[in-house]
Amino acid sequence: MNDQDYMSLAINLARATEGQTSPNPRVGAVLVKDGQIIGMGAHLKAGEHHAEVHAISMAGDKASDATLYVTLEPCSHFGKTPPCANLVIESGIKKVFVASFDPNPLVGGTGIKKMRDAGIEVEVGLMEEEAKALNKVFFHYISTGLPYVTLKSATSLDGKIATVTGESKWITGEEARKDVHHFRHSHDAILVGVNTVIKDNPSLTTRLEAGGINPIRVILDTTLRTPLESRIVTDQAADTIIVTGADVEPERERQFSERGIEIIKLETAKIGIVDMLNQLGDRGITSVYVEGGAEIHGSFLKEKAFQQVVAYIAPKLLGGKDAPTSYGGEGIARLEETVSLKIIDVKQIGQDIRIIAEPV
Amino acid sequence: MNDQDYMSLAINLARATEGQTSPNPRVGAVLVKDGQIIGMGAHLKAGEHHAEVHAISMAGDKASDATLYVTLEPCSHFGKTPPCANLVIESGIKKVFVASFDPNPLVGGTGIKKMRDAGIEVEVGLMEEEAKALNKVFFHYISTGLPYVTLKSATSLDGKIATVTGESKWITGEEARKDVHHFRHSHDAILVGVNTVIKDNPSLTTRLEAGGINPIRVILDTTLRTPLESRIVTDQAADTIIVTGADVEPERERQFSERGIEIIKLETAKIGIVDMLNQLGDRGITSVYVEGGAEIHGSFLKEKAFQQVVAYIAPKLLGGKDAPTSYGGEGIARLEETVSLKIIDVKQIGQDIRIIAEPV
Repeated sequence: MNDQDYMSLAINLARATEGQTSPNPRVGAVLVKDGQIIGMGAHLKAGEHHAEVHAISMAGDKASDATLYVTLEPCSHFGKTPPCANLVIESGIKKVFVASFDPNPLVGGTGIKKMRDAGIEVEVGLMEEEAKALNKVFFHYISTGLPYVTLKSATSLDGKIATVTGESKWITGEEARKDVHHFRHSHDAILVGVNTVIKDNPSLTTRLEAGGINPIRVILDTTLRTPLESRIVTDQAADTIIVTGADVEPERERQFSERGIEIIKLETAKIGIVDMLNQLGDRGITSVYVEGGAEIHGSFLKEKAFQQVVAYIAPKLLGGKDAPTSYGGEGIARLEETVSLKIIDVKQIGQDIRIIAEPV
Repeated sequence: MNDQDYMSLAINLARATEGQTSPNPRVGAVLVKDGQIIGMGAHLKAGEHHAEVHAISMAGDKASDATLYVTLEPCSHFGKTPPCANLVIESGIKKVFVASFDPNPLVGGTGIKKMRDAGIEVEVGLMEEEAKALNKVFFHYISTGLPYVTLKSATSLDGKIATVTGESKWITGEEARKDVHHFRHSHDAILVGVNTVIKDNPSLTTRLEAGGINPIRVILDTTLRTPLESRIVTDQAADTIIVTGADVEPERERQFSERGIEIIKLETAKIGIVDMLNQLGDRGITSVYVEGGAEIHGSFLKEKAFQQVVAYIAPKLLGGKDAPTSYGGEGIARLEETVSLKIIDVKQIGQDIRIIAEPV
């Protein structure tokens, strides 16, 4: 085992906590002395111990003179827990490998400085890329105040989301649809347009064999047309927010509030995507999984308001000049206005192909 | 080196002749004696020596008592060359490994029988799948009389072939567009609709650094609207066929015949895809590379008249409810009518992704 192996283990510990640390980042820590692992830990849940605390407490007295591998710069401020940098210093740790800086521009580097000032040798940047990828949601949220947005689509190989008559269940196979639930689990919120609610009456919950966390349901519904008998209104399965334009009647609003649905009424007649995302960010929502439909995807695309695209492509051909596609709206006129992406991952999921890409 | 290694070499020899043996299959042969390769060959061009002839002639007298590895059953009939089965017998070869049967239902098995009757030990089926994949075009053509049809598309990740205003140059990157020329090289014919000719005035030739064979150009043009000044009419770069419906004026036809363009006038007012393919098959065209546009792809899809789909997907989002997609036409109404495909290959080509699939 070398430095990279220990950091790699720390990253794997952090990776395992997908979906459960929000709004905090995923962090892993490994404590090593004389070539033996004497402590390991990950941050499991906001408000609970940070990764370093678990690792150091596992090591007990042995932590003195040990080397710490931690995926994110230890914190230096008093939040829900005391600063980890202080604990690292107090425990007598002599060397610290930090994979990535704290992305918060106000505090980034202060934890490292504090440890160095106390005489600890600190190396920054080991497996930095992997560590950053672990928390791309957190990094985005901390630096912009806006949730990290994933746009999901599921199409045939010829780009259709339904037949010309609108039949869409199901284009992709069972495994791909299961995969979608992992994404629901790992995002704070799931977002669809009101047309999807009216047409499909979905529950928008996470259905995984081992359980899974239900995301907050966000419905974009300019004129508050969501039927009161919709599953998302009646099933109490998860917190639900309906975002509306300014021109909604208070009486209509009240019908939803009474049923425990939060209404975010924007100040404009139409829903501005960035305005709406700001509102969600203010409520501590760090990530949003957008399932469509096509007009919603078109709106996010127009504003370039997304950080990740997940496209499932089924090995089927539907044909049809008028069959709907995954990204609607006005679209661009000139190819030079195109939103260019970088492919991050291509994978076969059951019969289908999943492409993950990010805007360049 | 074992039997599989020798057959694998024979398959590689055959693979190298892509695009140059039509209407004949790609065949490779390796001749081995006492653990040494004493002859190798591939069929290079229709009318010239078969693979076995090259291998046996390289070995000379040493062929006696040798073992032959050949990717396709040696022929038993007098065609443009004498039967290879006879030559194998005369040369004193004692054992033959054949990867795949001759797919021609009239002659399949007769070459093997002839060799066995002469006392040669013949084993059939070693690496059969690889050998068949080598000649899927030939196998299809021989057994149906119709050309093998490849449908090519190039779209954005959201399935668009152009912006809402029709701009389409270029969605995919340079490497993907180069890859297209390999496919043009390896198909007997390239097919587009007249709208593509009118809109893009393409040359439809093969432009590879090392040269490449120009496919026969086939234009589907029901009412013979192809402009006389189009590149495909004036450039003399490759043989050109225009397929029309029955209602075209002889005078208009003559203008094209005069310019060396062959007109295939079908007996129906509209162009029937299968009827058209039959006509091409009758002319010895074993494979057709269909580049679109969308209505043409929709027609082939409707008739299920294709054997392969090659879809290039660029990491871009164009959006647009009204932006055109790769497969147009009426499309299917019910998902149960969908044409299901099997993914054969997924590969990154430059920035883009290429998916090759076949109907199930």
